[in-house]
Amino acid sequence: MDKKLIGVDLGGTTIKFAILTQDGEVQQKWSIKTDILDEGSHIVPDIIESINHHLDLYEMKPEQFIGIGMGTPGTVDVEKGTVIGAYNLNWKTLQNVKDEVEKGTGIAFALDNDANVAALGEQWKGAGENAANVAFITLGTGVGGGIIADGKLLHGMGAAGEVGHVNVEPGGYLCTCGNRGCLETYASATGVVRVARDMAEEFAGKSALKDSVDNGDDVTSKMVFDLAKEDDVLAVKVVDRVCRYLGLACANISSILHPEYIVIGGGVSAAGNFLLEQVAKYFKQYAFPTIRNTTKIKLARLGNDAGVIGAASLALKFKD
Amino acid sequence: MDKKLIGVDLGGTTIKFAILTQDGEVQQKWSIKTDILDEGSHIVPDIIESINHHLDLYEMKPEQFIGIGMGTPGTVDVEKGTVIGAYNLNWKTLQNVKDEVEKGTGIAFALDNDANVAALGEQWKGAGENAANVAFITLGTGVGGGIIADGKLLHGMGAAGEVGHVNVEPGGYLCTCGNRGCLETYASATGVVRVARDMAEEFAGKSALKDSVDNGDDVTSKMVFDLAKEDDVLAVKVVDRVCRYLGLACANISSILHPEYIVIGGGVSAAGNFLLEQVAKYFKQYAFPTIRNTTKIKLARLGNDAGVIGAASLALKFKD
Repeated sequence: MDKKLIGVDLGGTTIKFAILTQDGEVQQKWSIKTDILDEGSHIVPDIIESINHHLDLYEMKPEQFIGIGMGTPGTVDVEKGTVIGAYNLNWKTLQNVKDEVEKGTGIAFALDNDANVAALGEQWKGAGENAANVAFITLGTGVGGGIIADGKLLHGMGAAGEVGHVNVEPGGYLCTCGNRGCLETYASATGVVRVARDMAEEFAGKSALKDSVDNGDDVTSKMVFDLAKEDDVLAVKVVDRVCRYLGLACANISSILHPEYIVIGGGVSAAGNFLLEQVAKYFKQYAFPTIRNTTKIKLARLGNDAGVIGAASLALKFKD
Repeated sequence: MDKKLIGVDLGGTTIKFAILTQDGEVQQKWSIKTDILDEGSHIVPDIIESINHHLDLYEMKPEQFIGIGMGTPGTVDVEKGTVIGAYNLNWKTLQNVKDEVEKGTGIAFALDNDANVAALGEQWKGAGENAANVAFITLGTGVGGGIIADGKLLHGMGAAGEVGHVNVEPGGYLCTCGNRGCLETYASATGVVRVARDMAEEFAGKSALKDSVDNGDDVTSKMVFDLAKEDDVLAVKVVDRVCRYLGLACANISSILHPEYIVIGGGVSAAGNFLLEQVAKYFKQYAFPTIRNTTKIKLARLGNDAGVIGAASLALKFKD
């Protein structure tokens, strides 16, 4: 009775862990550094050791857990519990994560990619308010996402929820994927800076942002949003353009999925309501009436905890 | 044992019926005219009477059926089995279709909207080859669609699959929904003609299509595609533009859902491989590599039967 969940959020620099109730309440949290040496071969043993160590510490036994869920970078085979191509972990070859963790801990293990797991976290315990239909967009170094439809993560043939590669400007900026005009090239942290540099070049007026670009300062996405909040003319234009693309992507995602909420998270979303209101304005412009009046755009609420919480929710499937 | 399904495809001019095996094999087909007089109040009684009459004719009993599934225009409440706002049926007020049909036939009844039901038909027995993840786009008077993810229709909050309102040209043609640039305004039968008229105006060269437009002929979507197949310079440009928008929409749908197939049906798709190849070309240009290499664009196979077949599949949920 009253068994617990373990959530693991595996990242390129840190591995976060949490023990949660079945209702998603975090009871314990800890983290370790990610050791990516030797082709990342220490990562899974470190995870196993850290879990076992903390179970000892809290005087808990494997039988007291429903399961472990984990979010990971790379390409995940959800059925088999394997990962391949997680380059920031030095995982180039196939990793049998599920088999190893289950063997090493004696606890059932489930796996999904990091963006999907963050989406689950926000849907379950964050801005998604446990609604059955939620789309999640994370604006970080890249733009990722995850989609929950009828209460379940969508995988399609594996790459569903790749909202960063929704094309918002055919023929636009070149993306790392090889295409031009992906949302990621405009709305990621680096994308925002790219738009700023590009628009600064053609901008003639007075602007602190333009001065920074021209001076060769280390311009950041945060700087662009901060200056826009202070009515810097160029920064306002940059934010407007970024939010227009985000609003368009949200509208098109919604025409396809009709979610209750689109939740926006990640570093760029730290700009808060200032970002949200402008995205929502364009969303309402581009979405057709039924969608416009029912789907709501919200900011993510869980911050860095979305990963462990969503990961833990993966383990709920082992519940009897 | 070996119980049957009934599929009903309710349209503004005809109501189509079929009796199918559980494997989706059509064993009997018939149809009646849709009587939309008196606020469409004869429609449901006519459906009940026609089903009961044909069961008598074939000497079959209600117990020999798993259920009846129906596709309908208008806004459907799938849970309650009601329809509202089906203007081509004169159904302006709420219609308790499920309750009436179940009472009138003694057979369990399920309902969904016509585009969703056609999507199910193509996914189950048509070009979708019973794959778990299929998106369906129908290019008719308007542009509609339906999405099957993990083997189930997506509804979201009710309007999921409205691919006709995916925005492919912000600020573009005005749509009946009030927005500008919806796919429907370019890729429906009327959209194709609109693009043709628009491009004819700015076209200076020699073109039979331009001559037709200038002469005030009754230009159709079929005419545009037929002329393009004959290398009419303007018609080729029009088709190219329509297919570019379709390819963009398919790429964006795929980045979100990663389906195995995108199936294109409806009247405009009668242009066949000529259409398909050009849509696929742009799809490959706009889709990111994982999608480009795995999702396939196909033509619908079932034609007018998609509706009754997909409708019948709705009734499979009553199986035990």
